[in-house]
Amino acid sequence: MKQLQERDLKHIWHPCSQMKDYETFPPIVIKKGEGVFLEDMNGKKYLDAVSSWWVNMFGHSNQRINDALYRQANKLEHAIFANFSHEPAIELCEKILEVSPKGLSKIFFGDNGSSAVEIALKLSFQYHQQIGKSKKTRFVALTDAYHGETIGALSVSGCELYNKIFKPLMFDVIRPTGPDCFRCPYNKDRKHCDAECFEHMEKAIISDHEEISAVIIEPLLQCAAGMKMYSPIYLKKLREICDKYDINLIADEIAAGFGRTGKMFACEYAEITPDFMCVSKGLTAGYLPLSLVIMKDKIYDAFYDDYTTLKSFLHSHSYTGNPLGCAVAVETLNIFKDEDIINKNIEKARYIEKSVLEKIKDIPYVGEYRQLGMVGAIELVKDQESKEPFDWKDRVGYQIYKIALEKGVLLRPLGNIIYFMPPYVITKKEIDFMTDVAIDSIKEYFKL
Amino acid sequence: MKQLQERDLKHIWHPCSQMKDYETFPPIVIKKGEGVFLEDMNGKKYLDAVSSWWVNMFGHSNQRINDALYRQANKLEHAIFANFSHEPAIELCEKILEVSPKGLSKIFFGDNGSSAVEIALKLSFQYHQQIGKSKKTRFVALTDAYHGETIGALSVSGCELYNKIFKPLMFDVIRPTGPDCFRCPYNKDRKHCDAECFEHMEKAIISDHEEISAVIIEPLLQCAAGMKMYSPIYLKKLREICDKYDINLIADEIAAGFGRTGKMFACEYAEITPDFMCVSKGLTAGYLPLSLVIMKDKIYDAFYDDYTTLKSFLHSHSYTGNPLGCAVAVETLNIFKDEDIINKNIEKARYIEKSVLEKIKDIPYVGEYRQLGMVGAIELVKDQESKEPFDWKDRVGYQIYKIALEKGVLLRPLGNIIYFMPPYVITKKEIDFMTDVAIDSIKEYFKL
Ligand SMILES: Cc1ncc(COP(=O)(O)O)c(C=O)c1O
Ligand SMILES: Cc1ncc(COP(=O)(O)O)c(C=O)c1O
Repeated sequence: MKQLQERDLKHIWHPCSQMKDYETFPPIVIKKGEGVFLEDMNGKKYLDAVSSWWVNMFGHSNQRINDALYRQANKLEHAIFANFSHEPAIELCEKILEVSPKGLSKIFFGDNGSSAVEIALKLSFQYHQQIGKSKKTRFVALTDAYHGETIGALSVSGCELYNKIFKPLMFDVIRPTGPDCFRCPYNKDRKHCDAECFEHMEKAIISDHEEISAVIIEPLLQCAAGMKMYSPIYLKKLREICDKYDINLIADEIAAGFGRTGKMFACEYAEITPDFMCVSKGLTAGYLPLSLVIMKDKIYDAFYDDYTTLKSFLHSHSYTGNPLGCAVAVETLNIFKDEDIINKNIEKARYIEKSVLEKIKDIPYVGEYRQLGMVGAIELVKDQESKEPFDWKDRVGYQIYKIALEKGVLLRPLGNIIYFMPPYVITKKEIDFMTDVAIDSIKEYFKL
Repeated sequence: MKQLQERDLKHIWHPCSQMKDYETFPPIVIKKGEGVFLEDMNGKKYLDAVSSWWVNMFGHSNQRINDALYRQANKLEHAIFANFSHEPAIELCEKILEVSPKGLSKIFFGDNGSSAVEIALKLSFQYHQQIGKSKKTRFVALTDAYHGETIGALSVSGCELYNKIFKPLMFDVIRPTGPDCFRCPYNKDRKHCDAECFEHMEKAIISDHEEISAVIIEPLLQCAAGMKMYSPIYLKKLREICDKYDINLIADEIAAGFGRTGKMFACEYAEITPDFMCVSKGLTAGYLPLSLVIMKDKIYDAFYDDYTTLKSFLHSHSYTGNPLGCAVAVETLNIFKDEDIINKNIEKARYIEKSVLEKIKDIPYVGEYRQLGMVGAIELVKDQESKEPFDWKDRVGYQIYKIALEKGVLLRPLGNIIYFMPPYVITKKEIDFMTDVAIDSIKEYFKL
């Protein structure tokens, strides 16, 4: 493996990494994947507790999906998607609309999460221009939001860590303070709140609604912010006020979608239909970059006119509608249905919760354990009473990550939040292993 | 097929399309691909003369690539690329650096062309911030440039058709007038010019160089602008002035790369090494969305420091370094080598040129036929003398496109430019068929 690591470091710049860290902690070169495990060149296995950045669902190198992929490659690997089409795209649209919030009907294709966000923003912007509301040129997004890294997606993202330096390139966004349930300023607890924090959003919208084209939001779960979870009541209120002021609601379900939160899409908890829903990641069960922007007819209709009116949406990517990605996505949706995944996950989610809660009892640095469906997060704090966080410079999460890797579990915490977001094929035994190692690693770090 | 077309139109919003056009010209549903042909549900075949938006190289559903894809899927479909790595990525970097301009050494991964452009822009921007040249925050790009559709890529794009409406979301770019060899304002011809038009770029740089972080350019070939081709002398001058003023040169080889222009990368014609080279499209021979930003050490070095200095490049996409895409790209580079593609294309390119030139002689609407490697373009004009273009509202190219489709060739012109950019596996017989149909369709449209 050492030789491969050297070859890697000679040329590769890894994402979201300070490459200097790799001097003491070189990249782990993976040879193969199987189920929830990744195996390195030395035969050492790692349980992939973060589903490789929240994308994997049915295990690594899933035979059923591999075969679907190969079948499609042998028919048609790709074709231009302007004026041309193919069955995998058509089937995918039908199948995903079956499980999407009612009222969504038209679909535009993108290659990754960021491009889906960009497409939704551009569509909403152009929509308002074309229906005669040309003052509606601005967007609203929450503090701590994460919507991707291309300049448009980054502009609506609220994590300063990612975008501060690029401010001169970004467009200006209206940014009300979002929910912060663990440190609720209203002293409510998660189960007894009326989304009082919505007042910030309400104020922003009331004051600027004439200029607002859309609100973009990660429904219920702000992953990159540290697996922050908030109430569906917030979404209900948001849907209502967006309707009132002709503002489009863009639900970024890129991380939350496909059963992560316990329902197929997080919006279901609030029983709302957004005007746009962006999906990616789990769409291909962790296989290939592909994304969809699923929207209401009203959007499509505002662009539908004679060619010479120049109302078309002139957005494309070379690989738009890639048949390989579509075939994998179709198989993914088939698996959801055939194997009753959403229902089976209920039991697994309960088991994860039970397993973690038992083990963290005597750790004085656990600020909160929160869980939503197949996502569980331990927020570590310096002081349980004051909820004071650890200094970021101590890199507590990173140290725990390294300990856990030694022990065979891939956690990759977000700051000091250790979270579990395993592939859905995880077994009870594997859950036990995952939570055991995580908690042992925390204890080892704190010398408990 | 009719039923599939109806199912398609119920939900799918095709890229770069006025969907109302599909009322009279419904999407052609492709069943399978083989070599240069796409076959629809009725068994009708179309020669893919545009390589499905300039991506395909070795034919549709190429068995060798299919098998490489399946082999990789059976090992490892994907793994998180932060702190982790895998052989296909390592191999891909080594192999692509072997054929890249000398002096490039570090590689960051993206998912599509647009994201590669965004990554290069962000890297250049942050680079100058971190080497103490914080005034360098602006970018230079040419009129008629095309670099993609996400807001950052769109900002540097110069085609008003694509970006005019989104101006309020875009950052401001310095935009000197680019080369326009067909209508050269200096009355030079392609073979006898010293890139006089570089004066616009020179002026812009001399006046604003203190604020300029990078110039982004499509080397030699502005595809989306209508297959505009210009002299390598322009690039040589650009490299020189960028060096002089510490400006990064970003070569967008997304469309031009991988042999399209006759050399592996278009930059080779000018014998220059850019600071960043963006590649995508042909990188996977038309199979999967994947992109690379290949750059010099100096960029990487400016980000390499202790974690707490916060100099990391915090950019990522979920599928960064996707092993399936990498494995396909490795096989693509293997094919280039094993089958001596670049050299074989020389003969094919000559044959295309000969084939077209013979046939267009008696068409009074041909303003110019220009060719660079495996790209040939016929620019249709109202008047050969004045070079007056047709009114865009007449949609001349679009009408010819429909006629040619009937006859079994997929052209998809850019405005009134009918071009050929076929997969490299095209045979002489197929070239004859392609050019015959194209020219017949032009003649039929003009009733010649
Ligand atoms: C909520 C959300 N939106 C958008 C994105 C961006 O997707 P991608 O990384 O595929 O560009 C992510 C990725 O983590 C995400 O979590
Ligand atoms: C020169 C150039 N740059 C960038 C892009 C954008 O790539 P993608 O469509 O994969 O986003 C294209 C696509 O046509 C291109 O031709």
